[in-house]
Amino acid sequence: MTSEPQSAESSAPASDRVRLRRKPDRGRYDRATIDAILDAALVGHVGWVLDGQPFVTPTAIWRQGDRLYWHGSAASRMVRATKGGAAVCITATILDGLVLARSGLDHSVNYRSVMVLGRAYAVEEGAETLAALDAFVEHLYPGRWAELRPATPSEIRQTTVLWTDLAEASAKIRADGAHDEPGDEAWPAWAGNLPVRLVAGTPVPDQHVPAEMMAPSYLPPVGMRFER
Amino acid sequence: MTSEPQSAESSAPASDRVRLRRKPDRGRYDRATIDAILDAALVGHVGWVLDGQPFVTPTAIWRQGDRLYWHGSAASRMVRATKGGAAVCITATILDGLVLARSGLDHSVNYRSVMVLGRAYAVEEGAETLAALDAFVEHLYPGRWAELRPATPSEIRQTTVLWTDLAEASAKIRADGAHDEPGDEAWPAWAGNLPVRLVAGTPVPDQHVPAEMMAPSYLPPVGMRFER
Repeated sequence: MTSEPQSAESSAPASDRVRLRRKPDRGRYDRATIDAILDAALVGHVGWVLDGQPFVTPTAIWRQGDRLYWHGSAASRMVRATKGGAAVCITATILDGLVLARSGLDHSVNYRSVMVLGRAYAVEEGAETLAALDAFVEHLYPGRWAELRPATPSEIRQTTVLWTDLAEASAKIRADGAHDEPGDEAWPAWAGNLPVRLVAGTPVPDQHVPAEMMAPSYLPPVGMRFER
Repeated sequence: MTSEPQSAESSAPASDRVRLRRKPDRGRYDRATIDAILDAALVGHVGWVLDGQPFVTPTAIWRQGDRLYWHGSAASRMVRATKGGAAVCITATILDGLVLARSGLDHSVNYRSVMVLGRAYAVEEGAETLAALDAFVEHLYPGRWAELRPATPSEIRQTTVLWTDLAEASAKIRADGAHDEPGDEAWPAWAGNLPVRLVAGTPVPDQHVPAEMMAPSYLPPVGMRFER
């Protein structure tokens, strides 16, 4: 044995651009960690550039294998500006808690985030678009796609599915209590964690759902739970 | 009377860059709407550009008057790349629900988001930094700043507070049910809304909090509620 197997935690960053410099202990570069955060996030923020101005567009994201997907109207500025291989950055952030310390500047938040740098490409119109949207719906609501009215060619044409690969990505995680300065522990202010999470309320059927039809068992999606 | 007063809803976009082109009915440009969303959001995503590559950094945001603030370590790449007047885009997104329709491509989400385009500047080191951080803590936790161990010059030096103005901003809101295509209403799939919200769990004091000290009454912050 001349080398230790590399543990997931010790995976190296794919590039200097995604290496965490500040608080490097929060950085994770292994795909298992990155995938788990992307798969739990409902929304990502897509950064793109037009005439030197950055734009940040919120959008639903989903992952299949080594690709991260998002979509938009075929006519949208974001889609038109990026789909030909433009440099993008997609960041997904899940807020897990607020951290209250005894000094104002030691306050923090607990979170899981992923930043993906890459180039954006559009999947092919038609079958490939349909397959990607099928995967999107099935990721959120397993079993739903087969229940739906099949998509029409016109619907598919109006939507562009974009993707970038996950070769250059990093995760950042904080899951800890307050980090007070030495000596601050006795200061008489409350300190600790306030956990926060996204929860689902009661599903609200529209007026065309028959009274006897139950809300689907795949609600709520992606590890979310109903509010107690 | 030769002109009607302009209603909040009819405010015009400040620029073509922030005018909503797709689904313009979702666009709002009045400051009351923009401010309310920024004030309810805990996290924003800051877009910035380095060597042509966009980056999207998640960070806490807060507003005072006509300025939107965020902060970072004085040594961070984001701070160093932006603080001298760089073009930035800050987007804050609050997810309010998932919308399930009878066609896959009619699925949607309910949300409130704000996009701010501007240039980033650092507030002055020292008193101005301290005042901004005071406002940040007080926005989240009214009354807390006075309870805290006063910030030291060293702590203040390590933090850079950035701001941009709100002159070029837009809000985008969807708060509605499923928009099925005509004729889809009878398709036998469940359709409707799944409301989602960020809720707080029970505050967890750290080990130095005296047993008799209650969690502060300013928890949970910014309109959040405790999970039922």
